[in-house]
Amino acid sequence: MPYAGGQACANGGWMKIAVVAPSCTLKPEAAEAVTAIVAARGDAELVIHSQCFLSDGHFAGPDAARLAALREVMADDSVDAVWFARGGYGSNRIAEDAAKDLPNAAREKHYLGYSDAGFLLAAFHKAGLSVAHGPMVQDVVRSGGEAAIHRALDWLVRRDEAALETGLKAGTRAMAFNLTVLSHLIGTPIEPDFSGAELLIEDVAEHEYRIDRTMFHVTGSASIRRVAAIRMGRMSEIPDNDPVFGSDAESIVRDWCERAGIAFGGHADIGHDALNKVVPFK
Amino acid sequence: MPYAGGQACANGGWMKIAVVAPSCTLKPEAAEAVTAIVAARGDAELVIHSQCFLSDGHFAGPDAARLAALREVMADDSVDAVWFARGGYGSNRIAEDAAKDLPNAAREKHYLGYSDAGFLLAAFHKAGLSVAHGPMVQDVVRSGGEAAIHRALDWLVRRDEAALETGLKAGTRAMAFNLTVLSHLIGTPIEPDFSGAELLIEDVAEHEYRIDRTMFHVTGSASIRRVAAIRMGRMSEIPDNDPVFGSDAESIVRDWCERAGIAFGGHADIGHDALNKVVPFK
Repeated sequence: MPYAGGQACANGGWMKIAVVAPSCTLKPEAAEAVTAIVAARGDAELVIHSQCFLSDGHFAGPDAARLAALREVMADDSVDAVWFARGGYGSNRIAEDAAKDLPNAAREKHYLGYSDAGFLLAAFHKAGLSVAHGPMVQDVVRSGGEAAIHRALDWLVRRDEAALETGLKAGTRAMAFNLTVLSHLIGTPIEPDFSGAELLIEDVAEHEYRIDRTMFHVTGSASIRRVAAIRMGRMSEIPDNDPVFGSDAESIVRDWCERAGIAFGGHADIGHDALNKVVPFK
Repeated sequence: MPYAGGQACANGGWMKIAVVAPSCTLKPEAAEAVTAIVAARGDAELVIHSQCFLSDGHFAGPDAARLAALREVMADDSVDAVWFARGGYGSNRIAEDAAKDLPNAAREKHYLGYSDAGFLLAAFHKAGLSVAHGPMVQDVVRSGGEAAIHRALDWLVRRDEAALETGLKAGTRAMAFNLTVLSHLIGTPIEPDFSGAELLIEDVAEHEYRIDRTMFHVTGSASIRRVAAIRMGRMSEIPDNDPVFGSDAESIVRDWCERAGIAFGGHADIGHDALNKVVPFK
């Protein structure tokens, strides 16, 4: 028994979850709070990699350090899941390298995150790994954030379907992205195949004119036009547009879907908030 | 003589320049100032379309009105050049339609603008029209903006080579874009062929993390990787990054060029300022 201090969970032994920060530095108080939640649950061991607390300009350490920590936990046979600490910006800088020459151990674990971590979800899904959009460690500091942490753990440890976004359909592919992240990975080497997938999008802190411009870009892409439908999650903390834009985020999303001949599939229960649900890519 | 009140310019008759606003509303004081400059020069007639002063939310009138005004002046045999009033946001919403089913008259004139108008430059260049990146009418309100207006007029009226960006090379294709606009047109139906072109980029009011993310996207595109080189114009009014990003805009641009195997061709004399030079697409 390599890890002391916990107990086997009811439905199948230890779940060891490694936390790394491919984007920005994790707040120590978030690490402490989530460590306490995991300890209280007693169904998993959480290993927060020391790289999470590095700081190098905008990032949680230099590219090389972030990549090395990620590759280290991916290659670790004892790790069952890799949980991204938080978003911000920076995972795109290491995503292509992180998905190269994968060891077998990397293929036998699960990966969870969202927001800027979407660059990794894209690259890893493209490489055949098991990834899901869902809450990250630093979400614990949100109002009501404990529920998000439990939701993520319920999914990671026991595939609790209550954690899932409720509109997911059996037999239909699904992927979820921050809209701005999605826009920036289209056409790059880490762009996955969107064909036939329901594409769930959310965004935070972008002006309406930027949402409009990003929807123009995303729905103008031939690869995105192959999705089954676009569903809209929450677009939160939208700064005031000067002048008033003239239509709201939902109208913008619907309009560009219509122009592009993409089905608008309604709302999605995802966003930069404590209610953010899990969307396993498939 | 269809237009009274001016005199033929020395090197070949009237130049009639039509101004439309495919993005945001033109300030009346800018229109007045540029009208006065053109009258004093006496080498062209300026026709500012009334659409320039419409307002509909973020835009200079609804899409249909902006498109109709643009198509009207494109189809007008008496118009020699179409000068975009200003940027902001919105020309992407009409660019694809503006470039469809072109009348012959549209092919016999020149088009000038930059910033958000880059969406039109892209679509029109792709459609075989004669376009150039350069100052717009509203630039007159910048400090030193009169010089930018004269530069634009010198180019439009008499192809004055003193107006040109000085690094342009005979025999080498060249194109110039706002970096963020470029990022948003990659993969869309209005994306032109960049093969073998020197690509000049500039940007304004974007955080360093956004410049980094946009450079990741642009240089990650297979179509952009076919350029001869990227040259960097001015990146101005960069808001403070929180935390300090860790590298400046030029280091960011150089880094992504190097990662993508794209030659970094040095600086370019373009930007959101009165010194902005003309770059005819070819």
